[in-house]
Amino acid sequence: MARYSKTDFPLHDARCHLETGPIVLVSSAWQGDTNIMTMGWHTMLQFTPALFGCYLWDGNHSYDLIRRSGECVINVPTADLADAVVGIGNCTGSRLDKFEAFGLTAMAGSRVNAPLIDECYANFECRLVDDRQVDEYGLFIWEIVQAHVAPAVTEPETLHYRGKGQFRVAGRVLDYSDRFKPQNL
Amino acid sequence: MARYSKTDFPLHDARCHLETGPIVLVSSAWQGDTNIMTMGWHTMLQFTPALFGCYLWDGNHSYDLIRRSGECVINVPTADLADAVVGIGNCTGSRLDKFEAFGLTAMAGSRVNAPLIDECYANFECRLVDDRQVDEYGLFIWEIVQAHVAPAVTEPETLHYRGKGQFRVAGRVLDYSDRFKPQNL
Repeated sequence: MARYSKTDFPLHDARCHLETGPIVLVSSAWQGDTNIMTMGWHTMLQFTPALFGCYLWDGNHSYDLIRRSGECVINVPTADLADAVVGIGNCTGSRLDKFEAFGLTAMAGSRVNAPLIDECYANFECRLVDDRQVDEYGLFIWEIVQAHVAPAVTEPETLHYRGKGQFRVAGRVLDYSDRFKPQNL
Repeated sequence: MARYSKTDFPLHDARCHLETGPIVLVSSAWQGDTNIMTMGWHTMLQFTPALFGCYLWDGNHSYDLIRRSGECVINVPTADLADAVVGIGNCTGSRLDKFEAFGLTAMAGSRVNAPLIDECYANFECRLVDDRQVDEYGLFIWEIVQAHVAPAVTEPETLHYRGKGQFRVAGRVLDYSDRFKPQNL
């Protein structure tokens, strides 16, 4: 049974789950091989089409799968998955099935071949739209083509990496919506 | 009197304050004009030299100051500054001195002409190193050339924007350092 009940999420609102700067799990697939990596260097770049940029190190096993397939899924984990997040970031998928090793469930996406991680409350299917900055900066520019989010998770305890093996967990909500110009909401 | 006592911070460790994905205040200066903008779309790109990428909208008054000067300062505010952060993001500096309007103090940097915001616990002086992605993506690539951080602030209550006028505040610390490979710390 799926961990979360997820629904299609508006691509224009992807920032609601990515702009906070969470550590994400990047899943990928190429010719029967799949992998997962932990990633924290990323940013939104555009609302519509939804563009997302991230840095990937070419020493990662995932790098080849992602570059060859031109696809990935950005999965957002919460604090209950911290053991898996840290474990995944500290081993290589070249000799290990990370889904099996960390008890994670691969689910089929709808627009890409890379698998979704069921245990993450939000999944963003991505297609590579610009690799011109990859050789110089390791910077991949993606279009988010499909998004799945569990609507029941309204205050996800996302993980925010601060180096030295430590994370901050997303805490309380500050609602300033009444002080925003309507066009800025 | 300065709000914080700050010391030089190792550039290689800039991620400790930026990778968590906080909303930042970008300060800039050009020919006697200064400005501040609120910004949430950014990412680390490299440790050494410390490279940092961010998206800036060309409709912002700051955009011209930043593009012309090729400099900015990335200032990290905490939750006590939320009123100013929201106010700055919802007005334009073309007709307003934002330092004066929001009670913020401009301090001289050491490597760039853009001012530091004293009330922010961390300030990163940046020089533009690559503007080739600016026209297409609004993406500026910066080298962080000097960093100032208040060492007394060990768990800053940074603001993480999730859209719709709402922020998450950085919460509790999870220390997984004993599960990291030494080369990953």
